[in-house]
Amino acid sequence: MEQKGFTLWFTGLSGAGKTTLARLVEIELSARGHKVEVLDGDVIRTNLSKGLGFSKEDRDTNIRRIGYVCRLLSRNGVVAISAAISPYREVRDEVRRSVEQDGAEFIEVFVKCPIMVLAERDVKGLYKKALAGEIKSFTGVSDPYEEPLSPHVLIESDREPVELSVAKIIGELERRQLVPTLVAGRTEAADSFREEETTVHFTLFPALA
Amino acid sequence: MEQKGFTLWFTGLSGAGKTTLARLVEIELSARGHKVEVLDGDVIRTNLSKGLGFSKEDRDTNIRRIGYVCRLLSRNGVVAISAAISPYREVRDEVRRSVEQDGAEFIEVFVKCPIMVLAERDVKGLYKKALAGEIKSFTGVSDPYEEPLSPHVLIESDREPVELSVAKIIGELERRQLVPTLVAGRTEAADSFREEETTVHFTLFPALA
Repeated sequence: MEQKGFTLWFTGLSGAGKTTLARLVEIELSARGHKVEVLDGDVIRTNLSKGLGFSKEDRDTNIRRIGYVCRLLSRNGVVAISAAISPYREVRDEVRRSVEQDGAEFIEVFVKCPIMVLAERDVKGLYKKALAGEIKSFTGVSDPYEEPLSPHVLIESDREPVELSVAKIIGELERRQLVPTLVAGRTEAADSFREEETTVHFTLFPALA
Repeated sequence: MEQKGFTLWFTGLSGAGKTTLARLVEIELSARGHKVEVLDGDVIRTNLSKGLGFSKEDRDTNIRRIGYVCRLLSRNGVVAISAAISPYREVRDEVRRSVEQDGAEFIEVFVKCPIMVLAERDVKGLYKKALAGEIKSFTGVSDPYEEPLSPHVLIESDREPVELSVAKIIGELERRQLVPTLVAGRTEAADSFREEETTVHFTLFPALA
């Protein structure tokens, strides 16, 4: 069956888990026969946005370019996954409209995590530097981040296991009939996940096990 | 049947006929069930390369970006058609290698037309200005154009009707089994085209008639 293209748009602060989730969702969707491309911030800054900085204007330009590529891919049957911070609401909405204009769906996933948690984890050591004033224009510290007002999926990455986050996203895509449901009762399984033990999550996602 | 993605890369001077041919080939391939995207110079300069100028470095960056998008599309089953001037051989070859790296084919079409013919036609009035020294860095006049050494298809747009040019390109794609052959003897028809009357060409391409 011909798969439907769409855009899955992650947004959230640096370190919140966008790329990790994007890669896990990519594996799961590929296993279900979709064509998938993950466009993360670093890949795009290398291939499409070299020379752009972190001013509002340059950030918007960067996001518009990612959005343009998502649009081209989505309207040709590919699942385009963006995993860039995309801090500004207006340009996210602009991208959404441009994707929808071609008849493809745009699903916004807000990966939420309190900045103090991120600063504590601080895998790349960036928050420490930003909080010490050594990095200018660091999103969430010295540069704005505008939360989505009504994201299609809300991920609270400090409170939920990553398997639940993946299940919520896949569940939303199934509900929208953008991806085929593999297992009967699968969506309900994801929905009731919070109450359960978290030891056997990946049985839901054989491709990730 | 799942269609194979590939990149069809036009190169040639401004006004030689790249975009016209790209659009005609797009119509024909769409009619045969392919997903097709045409990336012409203007579209890309708006969406991916705003702010870039016409220095060698900026031109190379522009072509690399088009190449990156062609690569993403091609490896996902889409026919990506580039219709930018792409004056430098080295960066064209770099794009070819990057497309081929993912297992997709890269077909180079050289749209050749003598500069004096282009200057005479001069649809946009650009050659007159360039020859008068009013436009700096105009390819073929005040900026280099490096012809392909061994293009897969050679179009001589000052000597052949556009229908023949389309037939040559489609014929090459059929020979490479990148597109299905619609009519028995079709390729031979294209090959012997030069000898024939040129009144009924579009019967070869119902989609273009």
